[in-house]
Amino acid sequence: MQRLHARDAGFAAAFAAVVSDRRESDADVAHGVTAILADVRARGDAALADYTAKFDGHDLGDDWRIPAETCREAFDALDPALRAALELAATRIRAYHAAQLPEDRDYTDASGVRLGAKWHAVDGAGLYVPGGRAAYPSSLLMNAIPAKVAGVGRLVVTTPTPKGVINPLVLAAAHLAGVDEIWRIGGAQAIAALAYGTDRIAPVDVITGPGNAWVAEAKRQLYGVVGIDMVAGPSEILVIADGQNNPQWIAADLLSQAEHDPAAQSILITDDAAFADAVAAAVEAEIALLPTAAVARASWDAHGVIIVVDSLDEAPALANALAAEHVEIATDDPESVFAGIRHAGSVFLGRHTPEAIGDYVAGPNHVLPTGRRARFASGLSVLDFMKRTSFLGVSEASLGAVGPAAVALAEAEGLAAHARSIELRLGI
Amino acid sequence: MQRLHARDAGFAAAFAAVVSDRRESDADVAHGVTAILADVRARGDAALADYTAKFDGHDLGDDWRIPAETCREAFDALDPALRAALELAATRIRAYHAAQLPEDRDYTDASGVRLGAKWHAVDGAGLYVPGGRAAYPSSLLMNAIPAKVAGVGRLVVTTPTPKGVINPLVLAAAHLAGVDEIWRIGGAQAIAALAYGTDRIAPVDVITGPGNAWVAEAKRQLYGVVGIDMVAGPSEILVIADGQNNPQWIAADLLSQAEHDPAAQSILITDDAAFADAVAAAVEAEIALLPTAAVARASWDAHGVIIVVDSLDEAPALANALAAEHVEIATDDPESVFAGIRHAGSVFLGRHTPEAIGDYVAGPNHVLPTGRRARFASGLSVLDFMKRTSFLGVSEASLGAVGPAAVALAEAEGLAAHARSIELRLGI
Repeated sequence: MQRLHARDAGFAAAFAAVVSDRRESDADVAHGVTAILADVRARGDAALADYTAKFDGHDLGDDWRIPAETCREAFDALDPALRAALELAATRIRAYHAAQLPEDRDYTDASGVRLGAKWHAVDGAGLYVPGGRAAYPSSLLMNAIPAKVAGVGRLVVTTPTPKGVINPLVLAAAHLAGVDEIWRIGGAQAIAALAYGTDRIAPVDVITGPGNAWVAEAKRQLYGVVGIDMVAGPSEILVIADGQNNPQWIAADLLSQAEHDPAAQSILITDDAAFADAVAAAVEAEIALLPTAAVARASWDAHGVIIVVDSLDEAPALANALAAEHVEIATDDPESVFAGIRHAGSVFLGRHTPEAIGDYVAGPNHVLPTGRRARFASGLSVLDFMKRTSFLGVSEASLGAVGPAAVALAEAEGLAAHARSIELRLGI
Repeated sequence: MQRLHARDAGFAAAFAAVVSDRRESDADVAHGVTAILADVRARGDAALADYTAKFDGHDLGDDWRIPAETCREAFDALDPALRAALELAATRIRAYHAAQLPEDRDYTDASGVRLGAKWHAVDGAGLYVPGGRAAYPSSLLMNAIPAKVAGVGRLVVTTPTPKGVINPLVLAAAHLAGVDEIWRIGGAQAIAALAYGTDRIAPVDVITGPGNAWVAEAKRQLYGVVGIDMVAGPSEILVIADGQNNPQWIAADLLSQAEHDPAAQSILITDDAAFADAVAAAVEAEIALLPTAAVARASWDAHGVIIVVDSLDEAPALANALAAEHVEIATDDPESVFAGIRHAGSVFLGRHTPEAIGDYVAGPNHVLPTGRRARFASGLSVLDFMKRTSFLGVSEASLGAVGPAAVALAEAEGLAAHARSIELRLGI
């Protein structure tokens, strides 16, 4: 953990180093991914079977899909309290995303031109679910529910099942979210199958969901063949807290990101040096209690930062430079700090809003931009599964009003047929 | 030009070939682009000067930027009719995009949880403007105005100026749109400069605008470092017309896309075989009149398609499979066809709405998804220059309502610190 004081001489340089710290793997997997994509495109299902045998130790043979029945059974077998928790999460996520549905536009302006835009869902969406430790039922809900709310007709999950094993919680979540197909395929080969389609797997239009470096690179290479969500890096949290907080609570918040990944980052900004000491001590005490201590310890030691400022008025500028995925504002009047924050994935207001509540049951999406991408990107929403068709209706009279200007511009650009298509209708 | 009849035995296969026809260059420029990006990142302005001397024959020396003064002079020197046309276009584009501005959300639900989302513009946007034939003032307006309407503080144009030459119309449009900086740099090196920044050029957050294969690949490789717009391919139009149209008008519409690019595609669907003949003949007559005949001829011969159907009721399904950039519906009741169209960049309704009107003065954006990307992508909008921050405010009471479910899910996912951060606040 690194401790900085905003008043110190070297602060600007040290803070700039924190901002530009790249915690993402630079693993050069581009060539390998290109080869896999080309192979799946050329050989289809045979290539999928080969890669799945090689990387996952699973023989697809006659076991390509996980049947809907298996998902329902996993759901029914859940401990009732856990099933109720999943249902509460799904209900709240659905409600928040339903309110995101965009409205169509259709109006006629003063020139008599009819203008508008209609939104439609994509026909099919693919959701990648990682295998192993990162196969979270909450992530499945956060990706699948917005797609369903958007109106996507066909929702396909692909997930690696190393040696055939899969997390039953993920299957239960797939049942609850209404996933239509689940394929036992992972890695870049799964992304290729979703984008290009194979004999067995029909192609989709949009692919979302987290994955390792191979999955991320495959999505990047196929951007344009399909729509994709934002590149996801290690998780991060910025906690802005005054001295009136319980240090133990803030320590738990910092550790809730640190326990995700050794490359995760937790940062505290406070205006109280004694509170900073207390949080640092509380982190040590809390970490000892965690079954996830090894990961949390690695993250906190390598990437944790505590910044002491003279006044929390300095916090928004620092927060905007960091453009963090999660920002907690633990003060009595969080609004005054929040008003200055332009770049953040999601903001958590007040002393009783730990970030973890947003990971599960609050309703807003937990798929958020990382690695300073909140400068330009948003969390996942129904809009990621929809697209807008603009439209235009011009009458003979309104073409007379706006047409001549279009002719002038077309001629200036040297596009004679553009001009002709208007002139002929104007009779000029 | 290829002529198909929906009733013919081979139609399904022939139409499938049209749908899957890839008209985009597969030029393998990935390695070259990777090298340029790395070089600009490492050497900054020195690399930019080297590439600009090599590719554009322009010595950046002391001539890196085009001053705002030069743009104002170009605007003042415009022919008054052309200036008025540009101003009408800008006014109408601004009005259409202003109505796209998203609304913030802020509400408290039945559990007492405060939920919402705030939108902000990105700090800086970069707009690539190609050199040579494709340097269109209309494209500059279509990219710059949405950024300005979104509230982007800094709008930067980069454009190659081969041997120092630039189109004064583009400068005039830059003045009108309020562009803040114009740099005489093109190609992948310009995209690298915008994304990473150099000593002279501060980095931006989003890059939009058309370019050649090198520019497109650079944007794809930098996706995630910055936000980018959709990959753009050759233009295309689908005209759905009954037999009651003037064949010459429809021929001009088909040619208005064909004249853009030898790889452009124009398709007519009609329910009247005699009308199809008349349009085919009118295309030949019109093409002879065009200064752009060579390009239009190449496109029409290689990619033009006329499809005769028994009824226009068949048109929406064909249109959805094609997912074309532009769709004209030239009938008395365009609404009945439009109601069935789910996948299209922009739709033009009725006999007096040639697509070209949308290229210039109508208001909706002319930067639209090509190459069947309307299945998942939308035209450029203010949203491409904005991002959403979700937020959450939980009180002690509402944490009691939703917190236990979050604890159950965190424990099921093995994330102990997540659970702790809620349990500590609940006193459990």
